[in-house]
Amino acid sequence: MSTITPTPRTQVKRLPKRGAYDRETVFGILDEAFVCHVGFVVDGQPYVIPTNFARVNDTLYLHGSAASRMLRTLGEGVAVCVTVSLIDGLVLARSAFHHSVNYRSVVILGTARAVEDPREKMEALRLFTEHIMKGRWAEIRWPNELELKGTAVLAVPLEEVSAKVRTGGPIDDEEDYALPVWAGVLPIESVTKEPLADARLNPATPVPEYMKSYKR
Amino acid sequence: MSTITPTPRTQVKRLPKRGAYDRETVFGILDEAFVCHVGFVVDGQPYVIPTNFARVNDTLYLHGSAASRMLRTLGEGVAVCVTVSLIDGLVLARSAFHHSVNYRSVVILGTARAVEDPREKMEALRLFTEHIMKGRWAEIRWPNELELKGTAVLAVPLEEVSAKVRTGGPIDDEEDYALPVWAGVLPIESVTKEPLADARLNPATPVPEYMKSYKR
Repeated sequence: MSTITPTPRTQVKRLPKRGAYDRETVFGILDEAFVCHVGFVVDGQPYVIPTNFARVNDTLYLHGSAASRMLRTLGEGVAVCVTVSLIDGLVLARSAFHHSVNYRSVVILGTARAVEDPREKMEALRLFTEHIMKGRWAEIRWPNELELKGTAVLAVPLEEVSAKVRTGGPIDDEEDYALPVWAGVLPIESVTKEPLADARLNPATPVPEYMKSYKR
Repeated sequence: MSTITPTPRTQVKRLPKRGAYDRETVFGILDEAFVCHVGFVVDGQPYVIPTNFARVNDTLYLHGSAASRMLRTLGEGVAVCVTVSLIDGLVLARSAFHHSVNYRSVVILGTARAVEDPREKMEALRLFTEHIMKGRWAEIRWPNELELKGTAVLAVPLEEVSAKVRTGGPIDDEEDYALPVWAGVLPIESVTKEPLADARLNPATPVPEYMKSYKR
């Protein structure tokens, strides 16, 4: 897939070999994750807030209550940073210094645009639901006019974007390989457990297929 | 445990019933997680970077290469936000609007202090290792003088801190409970898989007990 040209702000400087700028890597991370950390500035103080997101083509969508400070602040077109991180494992080296973490992350810089068009807004809300659980939108009640009004949707262009990826085992100093300590990777995975039915659910309601086969 | 007095900046405004300010909740989240997202501002642009951390009492430690922009910027005492998030489940409601996520998060505001005292620095490095894997510090090679010099350590006081927690099932609009769609929670957990030994590990080296029983 095509490459997103790095800017001086997104070019990975520390450990540049971990940097990636191709859409395949960036989109792969964004599509596997469903939580991002949004950074914005109010009165000189940075805030970092976890939230959901969705992506279509070169646009990332955020949403939240129209009353939320984050949504109101970002809707004014201030600078934003959206970071998405997936943790794949603990890298256990023979020295403290070379301990590390295997991860895949994406950092998006830019400014958000408030989505006002009701059709784009509804489509973004569909994307949020489908991004979290593919197949669910068709079964649930869609947002009504009041809910649409109470929800702010922001679009962040995927223009100034970089990924950073660490994979593989520890890289130790040559003389440390002789140490008698275990070294390697402890893989970490995010898994789903048995669904917990809502207390008021009709027990005859089957667990949907899209949940049984759920995997990110 | 005692309470951290909320400030106008840390008082949870959206859904205030989800806010928590007691050390038991805040420390519990910080001690279970091992990745945080650090927000800082350079030339008006917020950046959000994932990294490891450690905690002792009312201090959170960050570290990284002394050459990293994040560490250099924060070492100058600018405003920082450190956010830690744990995702516990997808909350599947009967309407799109009431879909949610069960999570536990902590937001820390303040300024960082560069740790220069070699003993505090070494102790912080021990805490990073032990925070990721309790028991490991005793077995590995400790940082030498060169490595200590190449590592910057920052201390962020846990003074202006709030937690936000969502638990439980979906809360639907009364008229939606009659809809024939499955509703409830799909729990999500972060689990470790079988350790992968480093290619250069002596196969006679046993997997340490602290790894076999690893659980966050």
